[in-house]
Amino acid sequence: MGRITVRRPVTRVMIGADARRRADTLAVEEPLEIRLAGEPFTVTMRTPGHDVELAAGFLVGEGIISRSEHLRAAIHCGGPGTGGADNTYNVLDVGLAAGVPVPARDRSFYTTSSCGMCGKASIEAVRTVSAYDVAADETSVDAETLVTLPETLRAHQDVFDKTGGLHAAGLFDARTGELLVLREDVGRHNAVDKVVGWALQQGRLPLGGTVLQVSGRASFELVQKAAMAGIPILAAVSAPSSLAVELADDAGLTLIGFLRGQSMNVYTRMDRVTILPSVPVPVD
Amino acid sequence: MGRITVRRPVTRVMIGADARRRADTLAVEEPLEIRLAGEPFTVTMRTPGHDVELAAGFLVGEGIISRSEHLRAAIHCGGPGTGGADNTYNVLDVGLAAGVPVPARDRSFYTTSSCGMCGKASIEAVRTVSAYDVAADETSVDAETLVTLPETLRAHQDVFDKTGGLHAAGLFDARTGELLVLREDVGRHNAVDKVVGWALQQGRLPLGGTVLQVSGRASFELVQKAAMAGIPILAAVSAPSSLAVELADDAGLTLIGFLRGQSMNVYTRMDRVTILPSVPVPVD
Repeated sequence: MGRITVRRPVTRVMIGADARRRADTLAVEEPLEIRLAGEPFTVTMRTPGHDVELAAGFLVGEGIISRSEHLRAAIHCGGPGTGGADNTYNVLDVGLAAGVPVPARDRSFYTTSSCGMCGKASIEAVRTVSAYDVAADETSVDAETLVTLPETLRAHQDVFDKTGGLHAAGLFDARTGELLVLREDVGRHNAVDKVVGWALQQGRLPLGGTVLQVSGRASFELVQKAAMAGIPILAAVSAPSSLAVELADDAGLTLIGFLRGQSMNVYTRMDRVTILPSVPVPVD
Repeated sequence: MGRITVRRPVTRVMIGADARRRADTLAVEEPLEIRLAGEPFTVTMRTPGHDVELAAGFLVGEGIISRSEHLRAAIHCGGPGTGGADNTYNVLDVGLAAGVPVPARDRSFYTTSSCGMCGKASIEAVRTVSAYDVAADETSVDAETLVTLPETLRAHQDVFDKTGGLHAAGLFDARTGELLVLREDVGRHNAVDKVVGWALQQGRLPLGGTVLQVSGRASFELVQKAAMAGIPILAAVSAPSSLAVELADDAGLTLIGFLRGQSMNVYTRMDRVTILPSVPVPVD
């Protein structure tokens, strides 16, 4: 199996001091080719590990599968002898269950538009292929619970501590704030795919009652992946993009940004966020 | 032309205070379809603006063009009437000069490997298609100049100040530390493509004598784009990945990470970084 970190020599330069040679720990980045029934489907640059989850989550995000039964098998293959010494563990062949249509290669959300190309069409494409209705999800979450999530995520980021180079995605119970699963990757979309793939394998889709917390910004792509997995609440430490907010609005997903310290910005579906009334201190 | 920021209502929630409704400024994210001679080639989610630079820089990074003469024309098109009211400005058709081969759609660096799929093959693919020899570039830069770059980049990030949601890439003169051009985008690879596209249009490729400074991490993809544009020195505020360092090593590019405050890590080709000897204070 691929390694998650490697050691490399580095020269540490500091103004006013002598340069020093030392070893540094780096997050591993390697290509993963995902095949469907033997045919190349997509390639992503990812941190090795949890590759089956990554592929499964990616396929959920693309609307190709939505239940664990849709996945028949997944096997690392490479070179002539599968699993042999020449196996790079960078090619994963996924078998879909009978009856699940195998889509054309590199089918993309962004190219399904008939009106040329626009954000609106990208949003409509998500609506068309989505298996779950996030808008109808009645999950709610306390603001007091939300503000604990970034710190919990950070505290569990083992590889980030060593490398400073990985994004993280964590799935939390919306009621208790308990961390259900955390994945790290050089690509933020891969970290989310791994979380969704984990949930698919656990038979947990759609992910009602949960909050997905991500370490960076919220792009269109991350909202798409959350919506496709039935996640009602997505929280990011940094800013969302315009199209991320538009898609969250359309899908009925609660999108939170700038979740830091004791505060946050709620962009859409504020009705899912509960704020305890500030209790006045009783005066004698 | 597309907008770079939009205003959206947001609910600001702070523990212990009343929630407040206010307007927030978001970085715009919209899809851009790049066509070659009328045929769809790729789609990227980007911040509108400098689209021709983005397309030109992307094509340099893919090894399709390397000089301004290779680019014949670029025109926004969408819907039946080009430039009309139905133009989304999200489709850009690029015409290549006679004699420049039009590659197959979605040709990818990562799928050229005959040995299955591995980082080594991705690195070799860059070597094969690269028009410029970065390894032979004799540029050098003072450590004192390098430590000024992140602050200069940050000071010129107009849109980040408003939105907190954009990556930046800045091209600097290695000798003087002067900022030559800065581009911002929701995608870090797009910001770099826009810088490289600007340089192509200015007839400045290969970019000897420059440093490319990026706001975030250094991935394989960013090192690839720098190498393909003949940039000898790439500096990132955060961590590089393993494959970024391997490619920089193979291409002979100086890769710097964790460039913050008065220090940095130099991963490859340290010989280009000049450190002034610390001058002892004369004692009477």
